Amino acid sequence: TIQHLTAIRRVEGKTLWEITLEMDEQADRSLYTRIDQLPNARFIGKSDRVFNRHRGGKIRTVASLPINTLQTLRDIYTPGVARVCLAIQQDPQLAHEYTSIDSTVAVITNGTAVLGLGNIGPLAGLPVMEGKAALFADLVGLSAVPILLEQTQPEKVVELICGIHLSFGAIQLEDFAAPECFAIESRLRERLAKPVLHDDQHGTAVVALAALINAARRARRSLPESTVGQIGLGAAGTGIVRLLRAYGVNRVLGADRNPQALARIKTLGAEASTPESIMRDADIVVATTGVKGLIRPEWIRPGQVILALSNPDPEIEPNLARE
Amino acid sequence: TIQHLTAIRRVEGKTLWEITLEMDEQADRSLYTRIDQLPNARFIGKSDRVFNRHRGGKIRTVASLPINTLQTLRDIYTPGVARVCLAIQQDPQLAHEYTSIDSTVAVITNGTAVLGLGNIGPLAGLPVMEGKAALFADLVGLSAVPILLEQTQPEKVVELICGIHLSFGAIQLEDFAAPECFAIESRLRERLAKPVLHDDQHGTAVVALAALINAARRARRSLPESTVGQIGLGAAGTGIVRLLRAYGVNRVLGADRNPQALARIKTLGAEASTPESIMRDADIVVATTGVKGLIRPEWIRPGQVILALSNPDPEIEPNLARE
Repeated sequence: TIQHLTAIRRVEGKTLWEITLEMDEQADRSLYTRIDQLPNARFIGKSDRVFNRHRGGKIRTVASLPINTLQTLRDIYTPGVARVCLAIQQDPQLAHEYTSIDSTVAVITNGTAVLGLGNIGPLAGLPVMEGKAALFADLVGLSAVPILLEQTQPEKVVELICGIHLSFGAIQLEDFAAPECFAIESRLRERLAKPVLHDDQHGTAVVALAALINAARRARRSLPESTVGQIGLGAAGTGIVRLLRAYGVNRVLGADRNPQALARIKTLGAEASTPESIMRDADIVVATTGVKGLIRPEWIRPGQVILALSNPDPEIEPNLARE
Repeated sequence: TIQHLTAIRRVEGKTLWEITLEMDEQADRSLYTRIDQLPNARFIGKSDRVFNRHRGGKIRTVASLPINTLQTLRDIYTPGVARVCLAIQQDPQLAHEYTSIDSTVAVITNGTAVLGLGNIGPLAGLPVMEGKAALFADLVGLSAVPILLEQTQPEKVVELICGIHLSFGAIQLEDFAAPECFAIESRLRERLAKPVLHDDQHGTAVVALAALINAARRARRSLPESTVGQIGLGAAGTGIVRLLRAYGVNRVLGADRNPQALARIKTLGAEASTPESIMRDADIVVATTGVKGLIRPEWIRPGQVILALSNPDPEIEPNLARE
């Protein structure tokens, strides 16, 4: 689909048009040669806006103060800095006041469950970590530092994070696969006296609950008394089940191919089910499976609230669900 | 000593003066009450410019692109980012182009030898790491990330750094004490295919050599044929000896209380000596001992080139040396 048409330059009766298209992976690339074959047109070249916007990375570190006088240099570095170091050595609490610890978050991944893409490894996950850091910087005013771990064993992941936690005010785990993510998170919480978040569990659960509170209000339905079905019990789905139960939803059904995941939600007071049963029994359905088109249009019942959250391709497209 | 006098406000015949003073740790704090006791003056309050400039920390992360449209959000985060992730998964070299790895340096310390302050621990060393990161950002355009390690055992330090190296284009070791710093640096060089610098060794050595090349030129003396004495053979001193030998200085003398440090410079082709002998025999003397006033004025010989580098208080003050 065409997004923009811009006449870049007009010279000697010819116009250079910039045509911005939204294309997905299945888009027909023969478009370029077809343009070239038009009688009065010539195809000059193409670029990819998404890749352009990633070039050189999406975040950088800046100095809070411009270093434009020798006195500034002497204050923020040696000799002035030595007095601040000694003050923190005397009273470590002063680090909260005179360093950036309190506004700095480590955004850590081992790349085992990146977006809906699965285990693509930490390096390929870095654009997501940088994207998250850019959001933190621009929308929240926090400094986030992407940290990539090649380690996948929970004990060793915990050792690494505990070994480097000191310069961070909080630890944000990103895109760690279930079930390892649960052990990693709970051990870090035990060992570190600072916030430990697993974005996929806690971030998704908070946003999903907020959406369901709104949806229930608009549908004039009581959320605690509704039957809520959660399809997909990875990190996100399990986090949603936990938060729904904590919010007071009485009946929560969960479905997953993995028996361990079903056993885990039973300890949270939810019931094991299947996608088909959930679609039949639940007033509200949340899906976090990573499986495009998992929910068949014929399963949908009128009045059902559905959050199909998989990313970038949901379990069912809104227009199909409405038919 | 007074640096500035500024009349901040004049009201009803009274003037509020801001007086900026340079004070060291030994300064007489009774100054404040003495001002208060002057017939027409009253002391209102004081603040510390160095601490003010550290408040909240000296660095922060920013987004390279302002996130001001939904399209930007969709390009730098999901769904657009997924295509960049998959491209890097296919060809990891693309991470150099589409992430900030190549401009990001980890500035790592365990706080065992911070400035001339010694082993004050990593947290108290953080203001130095942030200061270095601010210099990198403002003067060089590199993004530096302070990483604090509580670990002091070389093998475990190496394990931690190798466990998190992936998001950094280079590793800068800062303020690691000798002799552990030598093993840490050489093992990291073996294991990581990226630049590993130990600032105290390599940074100091490069600057010291540059200064000596200039000093020799101004003194119309050949640096390679001069006898150079290095007093203090920690990380910095050993790095200077190594670089002087690599530059082609034939006779390098070294002095340190630690016999291991003396043994180490013999493997670099230098001779073990003492501070007194060095002051007597060397044309050029470099001191990196951390001991204020170590060099006695009566040891100085006319025409001798002396770099007293200890920080914040040098081995001899320039005015004393000239007398």
